[in-house]
Amino acid sequence: MSMQGQPLARYAAARRIGDMVYFSGVIAVDPGTKQVIERFEQLDPDTRAALGETGELSIDVYQAPILVQSWVVLERIRHLAEQHGGSMADVFKLVQYFTDLRDYPLYAKVRRLFYPGEPPVSTVVEVKGMLPSPQVRIEVEGTAFIPLKA
Amino acid sequence: MSMQGQPLARYAAARRIGDMVYFSGVIAVDPGTKQVIERFEQLDPDTRAALGETGELSIDVYQAPILVQSWVVLERIRHLAEQHGGSMADVFKLVQYFTDLRDYPLYAKVRRLFYPGEPPVSTVVEVKGMLPSPQVRIEVEGTAFIPLKA
Amino acid sequence: MSMQGQPLARYAAARRIGDMVYFSGVIAVDPGTKQVIERFEQLDPDTRAALGETGELSIDVYQAPILVQSWVVLERIRHLAEQHGGSMADVFKLVQYFTDLRDYPLYAKVRRLFYPGEPPVSTVVEVKGMLPSPQVRIEVEGTAFIPLKA
Amino acid sequence: MSMQGQPLARYAAARRIGDMVYFSGVIAVDPGTKQVIERFEQLDPDTRAALGETGELSIDVYQAPILVQSWVVLERIRHLAEQHGGSMADVFKLVQYFTDLRDYPLYAKVRRLFYPGEPPVSTVVEVKGMLPSPQVRIEVEGTAFIPLKA
Amino acid sequence: MSMQGQPLARYAAARRIGDMVYFSGVIAVDPGTKQVIERFEQLDPDTRAALGETGELSIDVYQAPILVQSWVVLERIRHLAEQHGGSMADVFKLVQYFTDLRDYPLYAKVRRLFYPGEPPVSTVVEVKGMLPSPQVRIEVEGTAFIPLKA
Amino acid sequence: MSMQGQPLARYAAARRIGDMVYFSGVIAVDPGTKQVIERFEQLDPDTRAALGETGELSIDVYQAPILVQSWVVLERIRHLAEQHGGSMADVFKLVQYFTDLRDYPLYAKVRRLFYPGEPPVSTVVEVKGMLPSPQVRIEVEGTAFIPLKA
Amino acid sequence: MSMQGQPLARYAAARRIGDMVYFSGVIAVDPGTKQVIERFEQLDPDTRAALGETGELSIDVYQAPILVQSWVVLERIRHLAEQHGGSMADVFKLVQYFTDLRDYPLYAKVRRLFYPGEPPVSTVVEVKGMLPSPQVRIEVEGTAFIPLKA
Amino acid sequence: MSMQGQPLARYAAARRIGDMVYFSGVIAVDPGTKQVIERFEQLDPDTRAALGETGELSIDVYQAPILVQSWVVLERIRHLAEQHGGSMADVFKLVQYFTDLRDYPLYAKVRRLFYPGEPPVSTVVEVKGMLPSPQVRIEVEGTAFIPLKA
Amino acid sequence: MSMQGQPLARYAAARRIGDMVYFSGVIAVDPGTKQVIERFEQLDPDTRAALGETGELSIDVYQAPILVQSWVVLERIRHLAEQHGGSMADVFKLVQYFTDLRDYPLYAKVRRLFYPGEPPVSTVVEVKGMLPSPQVRIEVEGTAFIPLKA
Amino acid sequence: MSMQGQPLARYAAARRIGDMVYFSGVIAVDPGTKQVIERFEQLDPDTRAALGETGELSIDVYQAPILVQSWVVLERIRHLAEQHGGSMADVFKLVQYFTDLRDYPLYAKVRRLFYPGEPPVSTVVEVKGMLPSPQVRIEVEGTAFIPLKA
Amino acid sequence: MSMQGQPLARYAAARRIGDMVYFSGVIAVDPGTKQVIERFEQLDPDTRAALGETGELSIDVYQAPILVQSWVVLERIRHLAEQHGGSMADVFKLVQYFTDLRDYPLYAKVRRLFYPGEPPVSTVVEVKGMLPSPQVRIEVEGTAFIPLKA
Amino acid sequence: MSMQGQPLARYAAARRIGDMVYFSGVIAVDPGTKQVIERFEQLDPDTRAALGETGELSIDVYQAPILVQSWVVLERIRHLAEQHGGSMADVFKLVQYFTDLRDYPLYAKVRRLFYPGEPPVSTVVEVKGMLPSPQVRIEVEGTAFIPLKA
Repeated sequence: MSMQGQPLARYAAARRIGDMVYFSGVIAVDPGTKQVIERFEQLDPDTRAALGETGELSIDVYQAPILVQSWVVLERIRHLAEQHGGSMADVFKLVQYFTDLRDYPLYAKVRRLFYPGEPPVSTVVEVKGMLPSPQVRIEVEGTAFIPLKA
Repeated sequence: MSMQGQPLARYAAARRIGDMVYFSGVIAVDPGTKQVIERFEQLDPDTRAALGETGELSIDVYQAPILVQSWVVLERIRHLAEQHGGSMADVFKLVQYFTDLRDYPLYAKVRRLFYPGEPPVSTVVEVKGMLPSPQVRIEVEGTAFIPLKA
Repeated sequence: MSMQGQPLARYAAARRIGDMVYFSGVIAVDPGTKQVIERFEQLDPDTRAALGETGELSIDVYQAPILVQSWVVLERIRHLAEQHGGSMADVFKLVQYFTDLRDYPLYAKVRRLFYPGEPPVSTVVEVKGMLPSPQVRIEVEGTAFIPLKA
Repeated sequence: MSMQGQPLARYAAARRIGDMVYFSGVIAVDPGTKQVIERFEQLDPDTRAALGETGELSIDVYQAPILVQSWVVLERIRHLAEQHGGSMADVFKLVQYFTDLRDYPLYAKVRRLFYPGEPPVSTVVEVKGMLPSPQVRIEVEGTAFIPLKA
Repeated sequence: MSMQGQPLARYAAARRIGDMVYFSGVIAVDPGTKQVIERFEQLDPDTRAALGETGELSIDVYQAPILVQSWVVLERIRHLAEQHGGSMADVFKLVQYFTDLRDYPLYAKVRRLFYPGEPPVSTVVEVKGMLPSPQVRIEVEGTAFIPLKA
Repeated sequence: MSMQGQPLARYAAARRIGDMVYFSGVIAVDPGTKQVIERFEQLDPDTRAALGETGELSIDVYQAPILVQSWVVLERIRHLAEQHGGSMADVFKLVQYFTDLRDYPLYAKVRRLFYPGEPPVSTVVEVKGMLPSPQVRIEVEGTAFIPLKA
Repeated sequence: MSMQGQPLARYAAARRIGDMVYFSGVIAVDPGTKQVIERFEQLDPDTRAALGETGELSIDVYQAPILVQSWVVLERIRHLAEQHGGSMADVFKLVQYFTDLRDYPLYAKVRRLFYPGEPPVSTVVEVKGMLPSPQVRIEVEGTAFIPLKA
Repeated sequence: MSMQGQPLARYAAARRIGDMVYFSGVIAVDPGTKQVIERFEQLDPDTRAALGETGELSIDVYQAPILVQSWVVLERIRHLAEQHGGSMADVFKLVQYFTDLRDYPLYAKVRRLFYPGEPPVSTVVEVKGMLPSPQVRIEVEGTAFIPLKA
Repeated sequence: MSMQGQPLARYAAARRIGDMVYFSGVIAVDPGTKQVIERFEQLDPDTRAALGETGELSIDVYQAPILVQSWVVLERIRHLAEQHGGSMADVFKLVQYFTDLRDYPLYAKVRRLFYPGEPPVSTVVEVKGMLPSPQVRIEVEGTAFIPLKA
Repeated sequence: MSMQGQPLARYAAARRIGDMVYFSGVIAVDPGTKQVIERFEQLDPDTRAALGETGELSIDVYQAPILVQSWVVLERIRHLAEQHGGSMADVFKLVQYFTDLRDYPLYAKVRRLFYPGEPPVSTVVEVKGMLPSPQVRIEVEGTAFIPLKA
Repeated sequence: MSMQGQPLARYAAARRIGDMVYFSGVIAVDPGTKQVIERFEQLDPDTRAALGETGELSIDVYQAPILVQSWVVLERIRHLAEQHGGSMADVFKLVQYFTDLRDYPLYAKVRRLFYPGEPPVSTVVEVKGMLPSPQVRIEVEGTAFIPLKA
Repeated sequence: MSMQGQPLARYAAARRIGDMVYFSGVIAVDPGTKQVIERFEQLDPDTRAALGETGELSIDVYQAPILVQSWVVLERIRHLAEQHGGSMADVFKLVQYFTDLRDYPLYAKVRRLFYPGEPPVSTVVEVKGMLPSPQVRIEVEGTAFIPLKA
């Protein structure tokens, strides 16, 4: 699975306006298969370990979807920031949409891996749904401040 | 029906901050009658044709509300951009709220009429409702980059 | 109850980017007791009077939660703006999330106390829920323009 | 719109039994058009102002139905009391049925206009529905003590 | 089936207070079998004809319960009025509780048989349920004015 | 907790009209704390014993709310009757609203304590809700006949 | 309102195959206004009387939609039969779809006006919905035997 | 229980049109008692054995209603075919309505008893309900080709 | 995927009766894999283009199921007509069952591809479900008039 | 009604394993009529009195099902214990399944009649349902320690 | 698919305590793929035949899940019994949890294959869910008596 | 808060039968305050740290109830085992009831603290509710093997 963040529909993945970079809302869909990513098997072993996969089916079945989607979404935003010459630390603002707020604690655990330093400003709301299907559990819209090198 | 985008409540329709113009969320209400717009009859014939009205009641009754509201909302944003010296192409970012994501394909068809060139960055979520009534099916919040002429 | 707006989770309450200040979504939780604020008794007498407390139980029980939360949330945003050298008038844009849009008229009454002059650009949507609990009825995300003094 | 309180079905609007006058339950239907009254436009300007119409669509759409119906219902009861030689002050007992108790605070505000002096004894319950349609939000059954002039 | 209106629980079926007679709420239960009455077979042939039994199963199954209960309830109230020296015409006020307001038209048809002359004052509301079971579809509380013979 | 029955809103707790005394609907709210009464701990030991408190948590948690509210409501009505020179035996008519009819058997047990002699006329219906909150499980509206002493 | 039975969508209203005439499912939509017909006011006075309009709002509001739609639908089928050289008596088979089977008794009353003689074979089921909107309460599909005149 | 298939309402059980015989939709109601048939006890022992009655209450209570109704309905159609000079093999087309499609496997088992040879053309849909009551789980509309003997 | 229309259960796909051919209700199941067909990938490229596949995931995920099933179902009916010596134009009558009427506009678009000339008589209803699974969104029952060649 | 505890399906009512006796879950079905027991009339007068039958319909209708089923179930377990040479006191462990935990207080009252001395270890949970029908409100699985006499 | 019954989480599949062997609750998950087993294709041909697969899609789709899971679960328990030196006949007690009790008749048919002789003691309840996913329809907890060979 | 595990109702907390000790189902209620335990504040600091309290309100509000209840319940079972001369390792079998299976992963994390060595046999099901209130999220029934010292 690649993390290039190609848009699933006809919209721009990101747009630079001066020193600011605005990202479209990101969800965890594999651009190749067009399937929503939600199982540990869809990630590489190191990431799975970092996310806390237990190997016990009864636990993983409940925790995998949000852990995996959180990682994929934030990894894509990090990738997009790098494409525009910045890093995750430059993504200073996140609006996060959940379909079930009980997913928040596991998401928060993952986000900390991406923000070891200063955290972003953040808004969290629970909505009815996201595109393209009910399996999507999180969508994140980021804004980055990446000054153009003179 | 005029498209001036007068606010329905006590808030500003748009605010210029330097080279940026921020718009309030726009919904499809006729400022004169204060009614939600949702029938083809409320538009002029050319627009109706462009939106794909079929004239078959059993089809139009399901497609009219989102087609009509999508057009009205985007037309208002276009109008607001022009009032601030820009065009739709300058509205580089849209946050789109739906009450039913099944409306998305028809909205996307309409949006393409407004963005023949480069598309905007875009976030789409499904929410429980919008003001002022359950008939509202879409609300769009835009941001534009329209540098002040020196 | 203090109004310093300390974040409830690991995120920044606000971030300055050039002349702009971005705020995290604000909800009405007392940072000391970690309880959602929703009763008139949690405010001082002057504020209670300004919000229209009637003293009739059957009325206040329905109106207190949104009146109180609206005031606390906007007061925090005002406080954050002041911490960054500005005032409420500089908070030019608000995104407002409700769990029940029937709360809007009472919220609007409170907001007018904070914006006696020019109103902000505004987006209002009804969502399924907010952190940290179902008692939260409103979350507001503000953006301010507060130029740095040269 | 007249306020004569003609019954919608085959029942008596009021019956005098000695010094007592019993009223049928009253709901806000225009006897001419047979439509439920629920918009400010159906009242005269003075009454609209007294009821607190704001002119902001997003507020009025939520508050108009109960404000308007409360006024119409109580005005009819007042009219019936006068037809029997009394005044609103003689209507000493009210049973009030709501379909949504969250309407109570706005109703209470209206009732105070009709009872500037001593209030009536009062029972309030929330029921599933009233005749003739789900748009009806309040029904009030009054009892008056109007001694016959000797 | 007798119509004496014995109370199902420990309460008075009626109480005379001076010239007024107050009745407890009446529902259609057979005091002998303690079953809710809801089939045409539980009435005598003349009453069945008067109520409009069609003999077509698909019609009667929907109309029998409310027609039968309406008749039983009003007949009991008539009987109670006679026990106190009056007639149905003296029962000047009725409060009628339904579990489904769509039953009203059929009830109204039955009530007209009991009030060929001047109708009573009347309040109608739809409630969640009545004792003793969900099969009960209507409860009627009457008040009569039956002056004591001097 | 006092039982004076002060009204929670702006209405009269009772009104004398000749020899009749009409009471507003009574619910079990502590006028001091403005909280709904629903635990045995809110009553004195003798009353708790009379109501059948078992001391077993799993039983009391289900039975306390209706037992306690039934007692408080009827005790207030008794108090109001005494304030007007009568006793509970003079309260000849009760309209009882429940939010769950399964509470009736426990209510009936309590009511018998207040009516050791002749029972009142009685109407019982199940409604959607009562003021001021969903914790209220019963509201009782009484009418008393208490002739003025000559 | 005319009863010509023009199709609402792109399909044939009827097709003759030898001696048989097959009709498309018919619903009660006014071909001119494209509105669902559901009020007595949309019919002429004689028909209204024949359908049993009472003039009492509380009754008519529940009975009008199915009475009116039943009449319009069957009248259209009758008209189509005549257009093909037959009469209602030749429409020997009906499949009737309801959205609420409680409407059946009133429909049956209307159908009897159209079949004073031998009734048709008949199938009745309750479905989730019909085109074009939820206001449609009945759809009838007829089949007629109308031999071609030699 | 007889199987003559008398119609429950005012419609024809079957109509011959040339060589075709059209049947009304058939449901399993005992024309004598007007009760829906749904227990094994309502059939004779041989049929019960053929339908697979187990005698174990926990199994039969779930399987009896659809097994019994399937048999009664198809037996009636067979009887009607014989009345018109044909047999079940001539009933070449069935439209089958279920209220719960999980009943289909058991119905299919029963239908095979009636069609040992060539099966009919068949349509199966799940609907909301059938006349005369919610206990009805299947309705079958058949069409037969039974040429008239010359 | 072949389109031969083999029945999924023990019933005839079609039956000729004289000049008429009756079809069983058809749903979109692949007889090989026994899976419901609902993705564009299950069709050949030309058909996908004709049905309007966009390649944008967020659009196709909502439109693919009904577009694909509509095409498969009608193609099977066309194939069955050809097997009996006719063409789609001979299928003069269609009964169409949907599980969600909002699918109708897309179905109508597809049907027009099969009926470039005179349309069929048509009945459309929304039902609770179809065999064999909830993924089935449309079932169509056709009738054709295909005279036997002498 | 006999209390022999014959199994309703093909399983053992009890099994002795050494000194232990394990019982199948017991529900209150009359083995003769195969009906769920739920009315006082199905018990003998002494038991009815012991269970607290009031004779007031409005009370008994809510309390009879759980009181009667609790008694029947525990009486059967007692009977089974005796059949294996023990008594209720030897049934040292009970797992109790309810469909509505509000039934617990009444069940507890009945269980005390069977355990005047030392109570059993006990687990109570609320489940979705029990065999054979929704009328079953309690199922109890017991375990007894009844040493074999040497 | 192997039937070794390895636990899906960190718990023991079985524990011997003296002559007793206690099993953990067993559900039908393939330990290799970690998928819930629910299709006939996941079993070998002989088992499929024994379970009554029909080959008709419309039947198998409803019956496969419970038939297959019942067999897998009981086969695992049998295997575990053998691992501890016993056989299915030694598993004398079963607690069976269903998510839908309508599955019971099919389960009972399967269980009889495993208990040709004396049946076990048995408790059956319907619960809200089981681990690891909603596709699980049955969980069985067994207890065996398998004396240690001296 | 003490952990003595006193029963909340009239039942034995545990019973020794030979070498076995059977426990009643345990839930997390504080025997002193009779309140359900569900906040970190109700535990001592070391336990809170061991359970993973984060101090971030938005996380703890979702995870505290199940983490705290899991610890309290298992600690009580450990305590009961010690009272009977054993340890947690002797509690070889657990039946665990949840009201929401999504709580399982957090429970499993806690249980591991109590079973560092060999895990117990285990059954997990999701039920509708437990005593004494809906706040209870887990109930655990244990069985221990603790041979009596000779």
